[in-house]
Amino acid sequence: MSAPPPAIILSTPQMAENIGAVARVMANFGLSDLRLVTPRDGWPQERAWASASGADWPLDNARVFGSVAEAIADLTLVLATTARNRETQLPVLTPRQAAADLHARVAAGQAVGLLFGGERAGLETADIALCQGIVTIPVDERFRSLNLAQAVALNCYEWRLGVDETPRQAFAHNALPPADQAAMMGLYEHLEAELDEAGFFHPPEKRPSMTRNLRVALGRASFTDQEVSTFRGVITALSRGRGRVLAKLAAQKAAAEAARNKP
Amino acid sequence: MSAPPPAIILSTPQMAENIGAVARVMANFGLSDLRLVTPRDGWPQERAWASASGADWPLDNARVFGSVAEAIADLTLVLATTARNRETQLPVLTPRQAAADLHARVAAGQAVGLLFGGERAGLETADIALCQGIVTIPVDERFRSLNLAQAVALNCYEWRLGVDETPRQAFAHNALPPADQAAMMGLYEHLEAELDEAGFFHPPEKRPSMTRNLRVALGRASFTDQEVSTFRGVITALSRGRGRVLAKLAAQKAAAEAARNKP
Repeated sequence: MSAPPPAIILSTPQMAENIGAVARVMANFGLSDLRLVTPRDGWPQERAWASASGADWPLDNARVFGSVAEAIADLTLVLATTARNRETQLPVLTPRQAAADLHARVAAGQAVGLLFGGERAGLETADIALCQGIVTIPVDERFRSLNLAQAVALNCYEWRLGVDETPRQAFAHNALPPADQAAMMGLYEHLEAELDEAGFFHPPEKRPSMTRNLRVALGRASFTDQEVSTFRGVITALSRGRGRVLAKLAAQKAAAEAARNKP
Repeated sequence: MSAPPPAIILSTPQMAENIGAVARVMANFGLSDLRLVTPRDGWPQERAWASASGADWPLDNARVFGSVAEAIADLTLVLATTARNRETQLPVLTPRQAAADLHARVAAGQAVGLLFGGERAGLETADIALCQGIVTIPVDERFRSLNLAQAVALNCYEWRLGVDETPRQAFAHNALPPADQAAMMGLYEHLEAELDEAGFFHPPEKRPSMTRNLRVALGRASFTDQEVSTFRGVITALSRGRGRVLAKLAAQKAAAEAARNKP
């Protein structure tokens, strides 16, 4: 039932490097139908493949058309991306709103596309008039000139977000669950016992608030079980350093005794 | 009250053209603080200005650093952008989730940044360990290689979308701001030096991964300045315990010697 991802239509693109960069971001976000309307330097252009960094298939399968009308003939919804405000009755959408509309149409089995103008001239009003909506990227008023491949990338990214809505899955995958409070209590009490021995808590009446502050700060890290045992190892290492020194000096002392008691 | 937009930190960028393209998208979305860590071909590079298409100010004011640690020293929240799945306990965010967190911190007056790796090598695990979260762009599994400027553009775009939205209350009334990365580095290095002395890192070849894990776990707590100094006091107390025992036993030994040498 569901149709393919949107076609990307470039109207009179100038630099082959930009066409290659467009192919690359299309591949990044799962699009593959690239259509070129009267590319300035003709087609194919070896420099496009060079700048696609291996995303060759949109270029290998790219189709060239003589006009925007021909390029979008088979599509039921075409949205024109332009940064400039236009005198038009077409709805003006953000890339996010556009992606929602495109997904709705594709889910209904319809073929859709996104139209982009050339690097310098942008889109002609006559070509915009062939579209069903305008996508405007919210750029800063002080520097509106957005690179062609960047404009394509932002729209493909929004399309992609609509495809796999599983961003937090990655987190769930990556992260281990935090240790339970019993494990944390074990860590706290281990640390506090060693700090007692080291005479850290002075004056004694401040011990309750000091331990509270230590527990609050460490608690915010939500350690995993592995991290809890790592930090218990840290505490042991820092304090057992004592033990090793003790043992070493005790041995020296014993040797001295022995030497002294030798007949 | 509100702090400037996020700094963009490029770790070991290779091509000056990409640095210029990054400056251009920063200008498109209202960012201006560009920081370069050991750019491969040195700095400044004329080709960067050529590819910025007039977005000169991020390049004119770009600062160069010798390490990621130095580049982020004044920031309280740094998010690392990487496409690869990492064995890490750092939270993994989408660019949208990251933008929300960055806005909340900036609204609270905190300086924040986004860290990006070089074109080929990406980010080193040790540098990621200095960050408080990972941003992963949801690219297609079949072609994950995203252009550097494109990765910056998507994050700057999400930042821009959030400019008008009101930050989450949770952060707004954040009691005390977290310590900056320079303070955290001081804590890490203090702890690691004491652990070296205590012989904690064995086998030695595991030291890098062991220190990384410690830094990631502690970094998640976002200690305040007060908490940083408290924990440095903890480390000192635990290790100075050693010193006291040493002195005590040395004194005993001296006494034994004296007794032995008594006529």
